Amino acid sequence: MAREEKELEDDRLNEYYGRLQTLHLGPLWSSIQTIMSKEPRPRALPYLWKWDDVYRLVMESGELVTPDRGGERRVVFFRNPGLEDLQPWGWGALTHTLYAGVQLLLPGERAPSHRHNQNAIRFVLQGSGAYTLVEGERVKMEEGDFLITPSGLWHDHVHEGDTPMLWFDCLDIPFVYQLGVTFFENYPEFHQPISQPENYSTQRFTAPGLLPLTDRDNRYAPQAIYKWEKTKQALDQLSKLDPDPCDGFAVEYVNPATGEAAGHTIGAMMQKLARGDRTQAHRHVHSAVYHVFRGQGYTVMNGVRFFWQSGDTFVVPNWVWHEHVNDGNTDAYLFSANDLPIMERLKLERSELYPEKYQTVVGDHLGNGGRT
Amino acid sequence: MAREEKELEDDRLNEYYGRLQTLHLGPLWSSIQTIMSKEPRPRALPYLWKWDDVYRLVMESGELVTPDRGGERRVVFFRNPGLEDLQPWGWGALTHTLYAGVQLLLPGERAPSHRHNQNAIRFVLQGSGAYTLVEGERVKMEEGDFLITPSGLWHDHVHEGDTPMLWFDCLDIPFVYQLGVTFFENYPEFHQPISQPENYSTQRFTAPGLLPLTDRDNRYAPQAIYKWEKTKQALDQLSKLDPDPCDGFAVEYVNPATGEAAGHTIGAMMQKLARGDRTQAHRHVHSAVYHVFRGQGYTVMNGVRFFWQSGDTFVVPNWVWHEHVNDGNTDAYLFSANDLPIMERLKLERSELYPEKYQTVVGDHLGNGGRT
Amino acid sequence: MAREEKELEDDRLNEYYGRLQTLHLGPLWSSIQTIMSKEPRPRALPYLWKWDDVYRLVMESGELVTPDRGGERRVVFFRNPGLEDLQPWGWGALTHTLYAGVQLLLPGERAPSHRHNQNAIRFVLQGSGAYTLVEGERVKMEEGDFLITPSGLWHDHVHEGDTPMLWFDCLDIPFVYQLGVTFFENYPEFHQPISQPENYSTQRFTAPGLLPLTDRDNRYAPQAIYKWEKTKQALDQLSKLDPDPCDGFAVEYVNPATGEAAGHTIGAMMQKLARGDRTQAHRHVHSAVYHVFRGQGYTVMNGVRFFWQSGDTFVVPNWVWHEHVNDGNTDAYLFSANDLPIMERLKLERSELYPEKYQTVVGDHLGNGGRT
Amino acid sequence: MAREEKELEDDRLNEYYGRLQTLHLGPLWSSIQTIMSKEPRPRALPYLWKWDDVYRLVMESGELVTPDRGGERRVVFFRNPGLEDLQPWGWGALTHTLYAGVQLLLPGERAPSHRHNQNAIRFVLQGSGAYTLVEGERVKMEEGDFLITPSGLWHDHVHEGDTPMLWFDCLDIPFVYQLGVTFFENYPEFHQPISQPENYSTQRFTAPGLLPLTDRDNRYAPQAIYKWEKTKQALDQLSKLDPDPCDGFAVEYVNPATGEAAGHTIGAMMQKLARGDRTQAHRHVHSAVYHVFRGQGYTVMNGVRFFWQSGDTFVVPNWVWHEHVNDGNTDAYLFSANDLPIMERLKLERSELYPEKYQTVVGDHLGNGGRT
Repeated sequence: MAREEKELEDDRLNEYYGRLQTLHLGPLWSSIQTIMSKEPRPRALPYLWKWDDVYRLVMESGELVTPDRGGERRVVFFRNPGLEDLQPWGWGALTHTLYAGVQLLLPGERAPSHRHNQNAIRFVLQGSGAYTLVEGERVKMEEGDFLITPSGLWHDHVHEGDTPMLWFDCLDIPFVYQLGVTFFENYPEFHQPISQPENYSTQRFTAPGLLPLTDRDNRYAPQAIYKWEKTKQALDQLSKLDPDPCDGFAVEYVNPATGEAAGHTIGAMMQKLARGDRTQAHRHVHSAVYHVFRGQGYTVMNGVRFFWQSGDTFVVPNWVWHEHVNDGNTDAYLFSANDLPIMERLKLERSELYPEKYQTVVGDHLGNGGRT
Repeated sequence: MAREEKELEDDRLNEYYGRLQTLHLGPLWSSIQTIMSKEPRPRALPYLWKWDDVYRLVMESGELVTPDRGGERRVVFFRNPGLEDLQPWGWGALTHTLYAGVQLLLPGERAPSHRHNQNAIRFVLQGSGAYTLVEGERVKMEEGDFLITPSGLWHDHVHEGDTPMLWFDCLDIPFVYQLGVTFFENYPEFHQPISQPENYSTQRFTAPGLLPLTDRDNRYAPQAIYKWEKTKQALDQLSKLDPDPCDGFAVEYVNPATGEAAGHTIGAMMQKLARGDRTQAHRHVHSAVYHVFRGQGYTVMNGVRFFWQSGDTFVVPNWVWHEHVNDGNTDAYLFSANDLPIMERLKLERSELYPEKYQTVVGDHLGNGGRT
Repeated sequence: MAREEKELEDDRLNEYYGRLQTLHLGPLWSSIQTIMSKEPRPRALPYLWKWDDVYRLVMESGELVTPDRGGERRVVFFRNPGLEDLQPWGWGALTHTLYAGVQLLLPGERAPSHRHNQNAIRFVLQGSGAYTLVEGERVKMEEGDFLITPSGLWHDHVHEGDTPMLWFDCLDIPFVYQLGVTFFENYPEFHQPISQPENYSTQRFTAPGLLPLTDRDNRYAPQAIYKWEKTKQALDQLSKLDPDPCDGFAVEYVNPATGEAAGHTIGAMMQKLARGDRTQAHRHVHSAVYHVFRGQGYTVMNGVRFFWQSGDTFVVPNWVWHEHVNDGNTDAYLFSANDLPIMERLKLERSELYPEKYQTVVGDHLGNGGRT
Repeated sequence: MAREEKELEDDRLNEYYGRLQTLHLGPLWSSIQTIMSKEPRPRALPYLWKWDDVYRLVMESGELVTPDRGGERRVVFFRNPGLEDLQPWGWGALTHTLYAGVQLLLPGERAPSHRHNQNAIRFVLQGSGAYTLVEGERVKMEEGDFLITPSGLWHDHVHEGDTPMLWFDCLDIPFVYQLGVTFFENYPEFHQPISQPENYSTQRFTAPGLLPLTDRDNRYAPQAIYKWEKTKQALDQLSKLDPDPCDGFAVEYVNPATGEAAGHTIGAMMQKLARGDRTQAHRHVHSAVYHVFRGQGYTVMNGVRFFWQSGDTFVVPNWVWHEHVNDGNTDAYLFSANDLPIMERLKLERSELYPEKYQTVVGDHLGNGGRT
């Protein structure tokens, strides 16, 4: 085809594309390469936030954000650099499905009762003396505890202690928001009434495989809290056995009445890396959000090292090669949340071991992820 | 607080927000109103495309888009006006989860074999003589037929007839794309080998409730095609009974081995509105995409009338009040696809009847949705 | 041990056994051989009943058993020779779980409405003009039709035709009886009220994979009848494809809303053996009850040939090697019912192909099973 | 009808019945009353065995039954007086589905490795130092421990302690035997090889809701043992909350990976009745077998009091009204096993509260069930 003809044809095609656009139509043949990738190409990037930064800014919000300025929602959340420019859903997205943040509740403060169709989980970072009310049950929160607030349950907080309370929150907000199907409702009163004994969950659930008979028809979310003391014991016990090759010594938080993820669309686990441990590299379709509860080390993601220590938060986007290394002097404990339940229920999950055991390290993450 | 003090404080807050932003962090208290709506606020808008427009542009692509320019993907797709500006996922999104388009295959043309983790369904609009190959089975497509190509199955097309072949495609592309988890693969050869008798599905599945014994362990997607002739008979038969109040005489296309949606994440149905029928208004969390197979009428969405006739496509976004009216001289047949399976598997579905039977009409949709 | 000592010890043991017995206790060590077999040793025997015998006796009951003598239950049932001496559950047991019989309803007769926790299926042998009422739906029965009356549904019969009506009944009576958990209830009136259009099932279910929207929340037993005409068409269609190696061309009757056995604890199927067909031998844990609807041939069970022709009934007990041969001049159609759903739900099912393709025939069944 | 005619007709009928019998056929109309009861009429009777009797006879078997006489199966089992005459399945039936017995293993003894398709559970009564091997895991048994050996897993025992070991066994032997589908297999060697760390279960499962990641794909029977110490703690904890009205403070033993009965077809639970507790009367379709672990009291069954104390065994047949009373000076702990999983999977379960709170006591059980 002569150059002139080619230009003529391109003109005709462009004019045609213009007409399509006017009518809110589009041409698949010129767009398919954009969207149909051979493998997952998440927009979310591997990234890491240092606790010093997060902590300083969260505490500062304690002064700035008074109750009349929204103090009951004093959360600083993580914005994935690969997602934050995407309007509007990049808002507060740490992965394509998950939101996470660090919440501060000051002594004497209360947060009003509400419910929503998002699923929420919570991991307590610091402080004591605060309570969450979940569907009539008052639950005391302490460092290292894991809590769930699944879709549709009323919940509110009150802080009766005397030091600031900090916890890590994770919700499926970006997922539900993108779907355009959010429901949110405030309770008619500030607090919901208390209808159950305090810490009802921990009184009813005390050992694995023992289901209170009174919970026979209460399979939705019978266990509201998972105490750190028990989680730590479980991991210490597991440390005497063989580790999971890719995740070390790890337990999933599950609903004891069904064995399924405690958080409905959000899975969660706590893993322990003993001093010197290095896990085998792998990747999977689901994404994960990590909070370093204790310890020091680094995670290699797609060949880049992200150095972490206690309090840091990092993200493993979908289909990213990753392995964890504990190069500190103590055991490390990593809390993480993930969207595996979504992937499994919709048959989207896959995973792959890295061809060799470890990745070749090609560099270190600068800035926030660099070791200081 | 004096005005001066207020300004000082605002300054301090803004400076604080700046620091948050630099560190890829965000303040929940000033963002929550944006994202936590009381009820679903989908970005997708109710909209309608006229067949005349779509048909003309699709046929024009037959001339413009030669095989060397991507002719095997000669699809004109629908872009929801409320979503198309959203980068990048607004690309080709008709609802927050679903893509749909009209594909043209010319006599003698072929499309190469491929597979992906998206689920696809197909509804044949015009023509005959084309075949789809799905996982080794050659399936003849004729007007009004419904076909499925669920996640992971190889599929390709070939047109052995002599008139243009047009079909309506629907996939969960926006959903899978937003999740960042797309897998796509081309078959090593142009066509996959044929391993099953022609139209194997229609030979094995001929009556409701009769499952071929040879399919006992083949429950994934045993039925590839649902012939129009059978669908029409089913609807005519149902028309002698009471209609569904909100959807008239309607059948869902399901997997006969499980009773679940034939398309895995995509539900589909065909509904018949007899002459003069007007359904009761309701709304539901899931979204739906309609293609008017035959007939003339209008659908009232949130009080606005969208007039349709044979060949038109319209969209009912999440949580939009809607009711259908057949005001033509013949029975109307509406094909539709939806994301109900996603909502059901993740426990997000809800629905509501409109307080009165019908909505108050407040206006007619101009432009594409207007009656000419 | 000297002989004397041995006798002394035996005496002591026998005295001990006596004391155990008195206290309703038993010794496992001397009983285990009886009960723990390496492989299933069902008490049920392979057996066959000739239609001539059954038909003559059933028709005779039409004269003998008048309505005042229980005419509404005019059923002659099959007693497995290996089970009938077992009190009390040998009563009417054709296999360890299944009861089957041939029922006669004379023109003008009616059977009163009742329900029970047993599951029932029905296969119509002769006649027309009779109706079953199932949970408010009047269903017309014709030759070759398959019907279900699952646990808990009201059902009754009425015969409006003018020739005797005969059908084959199969229930899980022995199973439920042995468990000691039978519930049975008569409807307050003779007939239950009719609340659905006549033949509601066949009007709603007309094609595979098409589920009426109005049945979305009615998944228990939406399809009451499976017409012979459709079953035959399905089998004729399947005959053009490859047969199941052990069962020929066969369809299972399933609930179209779930794909599970239509009869809850009782599976059922219709199989076609084309002229000259011989299936491959196999065995399985579940038991099966056959009724020869049409044709002539024989079934080899554990090496013995059982010759059958139209109307005969035979039983394949658990774990018995079997293969079917059509040596007649026409296609054969075998109806069968089985307890596979019980075995599958309790994880007891297993099956095995015979090492060679066919069994070595070691003899012919005499008496009822012999060819005349 | 004149008397003479009546006699003639009866003669004719009897002659007819004779012909039916000869051909292994039966008349439903004259048999239905026997088998179709309005409510469950189990053959199994409420009954109770005193520990003194059982213990004396079990210990005596230790002398009588030497290894060469079957010592590895030194079990004295319970024979329900209502079932024991039923041949052959009355053999060892405590309820219509369940077998139970007390096993004795003497110091130094071993039982060979085997597996079967029956499900087994075990509750340890006395002694320590014995181990069970289940599918490669060596599990130490101590007083009050609950263990499972579900269908198909290799298991064997060895006693390394120095006092006699006694445990309570419960299997679904009568159920599987009646179905005629028993499979039993000896391991090629006396003991199976040990492939897991000792007490692997208790090391992996230490807290409710924490699932070791390494067990993600091991959902069949991941927890082999439930230690008494944990069970007691759980019950003591529950005692501070409201009891189940009909069962007091009770926990079910479940598979922590699924929440389902740990024993597959056999459910099991431990219940605590505090001093003075009296539960509300009810009845249910499933049957239950009780072993009094500790305490003293009585159970009212169909109006009759059965007095029990530590070590006694009693049976609650299907659909029998029952309530428990602790009239001793200490808390009572009742272990029980049941066939609820069978009833639930086959949709046969029902239950009913007694119209008043307690039954009227009409008498005391004499003999074994009487208080001495």
